[in-house]
Amino acid sequence: MSLSPQPRRLWRDVILFDGLQVQPTPMTVLVEGGQVAGLWPQGAFDERLAVGASESGRGGVMTPGLVDCHTHLVYAGNRAAEFEQRLEGVSYSEIAQAGGGILSTVRATRAASEEQLIVASLPRLDALLADGVTTLEIKSGYGLTVADELKMLRVARRLGELRPVRVLTTLLGAHALPPEYAGRADDYISLVCEEMIPAAAAEGLADAVDVFCEGIAFSPAQCERVFQAAQRHGLAIKAHAEQLSNLGGSALAARYGALSADHIEYLDEAGVQALAAAGTVAVLLPGAFHCLRETQLPPIDLLRQYGVPMALASDANPGTSPICMPTLMANLACSLFRLTPREALAGMTAHAARALGRPDLGRIEVGAPADLCLWDVQQPAELAYAVQPGRLRQRIFNGAISYRKEATSHAR
Amino acid sequence: MSLSPQPRRLWRDVILFDGLQVQPTPMTVLVEGGQVAGLWPQGAFDERLAVGASESGRGGVMTPGLVDCHTHLVYAGNRAAEFEQRLEGVSYSEIAQAGGGILSTVRATRAASEEQLIVASLPRLDALLADGVTTLEIKSGYGLTVADELKMLRVARRLGELRPVRVLTTLLGAHALPPEYAGRADDYISLVCEEMIPAAAAEGLADAVDVFCEGIAFSPAQCERVFQAAQRHGLAIKAHAEQLSNLGGSALAARYGALSADHIEYLDEAGVQALAAAGTVAVLLPGAFHCLRETQLPPIDLLRQYGVPMALASDANPGTSPICMPTLMANLACSLFRLTPREALAGMTAHAARALGRPDLGRIEVGAPADLCLWDVQQPAELAYAVQPGRLRQRIFNGAISYRKEATSHAR
Ligand SMILES: [Zn+2]
Ligand SMILES: [Zn+2]
Repeated sequence: MSLSPQPRRLWRDVILFDGLQVQPTPMTVLVEGGQVAGLWPQGAFDERLAVGASESGRGGVMTPGLVDCHTHLVYAGNRAAEFEQRLEGVSYSEIAQAGGGILSTVRATRAASEEQLIVASLPRLDALLADGVTTLEIKSGYGLTVADELKMLRVARRLGELRPVRVLTTLLGAHALPPEYAGRADDYISLVCEEMIPAAAAEGLADAVDVFCEGIAFSPAQCERVFQAAQRHGLAIKAHAEQLSNLGGSALAARYGALSADHIEYLDEAGVQALAAAGTVAVLLPGAFHCLRETQLPPIDLLRQYGVPMALASDANPGTSPICMPTLMANLACSLFRLTPREALAGMTAHAARALGRPDLGRIEVGAPADLCLWDVQQPAELAYAVQPGRLRQRIFNGAISYRKEATSHAR
Repeated sequence: MSLSPQPRRLWRDVILFDGLQVQPTPMTVLVEGGQVAGLWPQGAFDERLAVGASESGRGGVMTPGLVDCHTHLVYAGNRAAEFEQRLEGVSYSEIAQAGGGILSTVRATRAASEEQLIVASLPRLDALLADGVTTLEIKSGYGLTVADELKMLRVARRLGELRPVRVLTTLLGAHALPPEYAGRADDYISLVCEEMIPAAAAEGLADAVDVFCEGIAFSPAQCERVFQAAQRHGLAIKAHAEQLSNLGGSALAARYGALSADHIEYLDEAGVQALAAAGTVAVLLPGAFHCLRETQLPPIDLLRQYGVPMALASDANPGTSPICMPTLMANLACSLFRLTPREALAGMTAHAARALGRPDLGRIEVGAPADLCLWDVQQPAELAYAVQPGRLRQRIFNGAISYRKEATSHAR
């Protein structure tokens, strides 16, 4: 990501969603030095400030650049063959016996070089960028050895250098038990706590640490050890929790001041209260809900009632959400979880940024980094209502226009 | 659409889905004069034929150009505000009383000029093209007067001239009862039969005639009058049937030799037998199923059992499926209807072409029009498994490369 200052630039007459609200009148937006330098409602702009490039925003909607706060974007291989087998009637256990499931991704990722992982991950990253993402989180979790987890994190950092995007990295060593530790989960957690976390922290490769707290993954006691190690090394905390059952993982994470608790379909009222008390963001992942054909809805009304900020993310991963399209997530959040379009958009901007510990992002306000999207839609709600690739007119990263839709010469 | 002959061109080493099956070995594909001129399994190609441009297909999958056989692509306005209101708790009846629903689209479409309808529809068409569509059907049905229905059909034909795509048009005068005919549905059907259909046929504006056979739309008796008028004028027949209830519309359409019966969630075994006997294609529309949060699944197993070809389409429309992304339809068909990826892909190619009365399309075989897609995926099933815009590497229309993904210079 390039952080060199950018020239002065002006967008006029945009319908503006600022990360939390739609502004009542069209706005003029001034960007300078990579930041939002001024915001005026229609008619209130002093034309003497109009030096520099001027962009028409007419007929468009401006939002903060989208923030995808939960992805497993870096991996090798894919699981399309498994997807096909299941639909052709092969059972889960047969697929697992044939070496399928998450461990097939672990094998492929361990076998891949950094360069191969970059080549495999870039098309997914480019799909996110083309749909408006300017910041994303990338987790490790398919290496499950010290070397392979660090390799994944290095690749994630590299991706942020190869494209105009902010990448935050999360060490997810406690994602699954690697086969060589079968029956020795506590020993594997010791490896995560005593080797992976210290190494990732020492090399500056991780911004946060995450766990998968679930019957099929790690227990609350094991997750707590990981949180303690993260705290010792000054890393932020996140958790996959209450996705398939209620083990109290979200409340545990909240007690450790977690940035977010993610999935949370089975979260109960006490858990919601714990998130509210700790200021922990609830990250909703409708892609996995859709792909797994879940029926247990996250407790949206309770989250609203207790004022817990709801973020939305792609959960992009090869097993349960091979989806790289944030606007589709907004549609799924509305159609499956009954979020309002405003909640969905706040979930992909302001609240998602909070889930990454970056409340300076995901907002359009004076002084904030100028990560912006200009969309060819008439109102912000359209981004959730319709699913239509190609609606991004401009993507502005750190004050510079990093993408501009080609004018279509066919149509008059 | 341009039909000028195209030069000789060769693709090597593609994994090939021919519209019905995945070929067991990589293939070499020769295109000449706008047609597929030769197909060879790996190693069997005579290199003396390698004159003309040679394209590498290595690492890619080739499919027929996608066929979207059921769209309502042409309309003015959109219904995002309604979508938002519903999620914010406004009731359907309040929205209807405020002038919402299909009649709001009818008002906006009636008020729009041909040029305005073209401008409104092109971004949707471009989204379909960017996801691999080379043939699509466009229905009228938001005009509901003779002049406005013909206007919509003219716009649909125009769209086919403005972009490299084959457009087939369908007159759907019997889509909804216009307000000025309230209480006089039979009179409106007379207008459809005695004025709309003859006028559309006389001007050569319609390839087929469609009806909406449903309690909230038109009765089987009314639809039968429309089918008879269509037959008198030599137009093909299609039907929206058994979407919300079982009125026997599909069997009725089959008796009239319909090309397709579309939606069919409530179709029973007798209806499936009627489709099989008539050679009528079952068109599945998972986008509307998703948006309307339906729970009644179409009778997939019965359709398989009786050998009824299943097509898939976007149903792109502002009310119940504002989705312009055929590969998402493949994903929804697999996840919601449990189609296999192979069935989903055949549903968007060979079977969709049959649903349009164009069995020459949607197949890769010697002599067929060279409408082809080259995808950046490793296996055809990936197109249904993952949702990721931007995977189209080349789109070949009538033998010419109408789209080519720019090389990404960032990645080594
Ligand atoms: Zn995850
Ligand atoms: Zn329809």
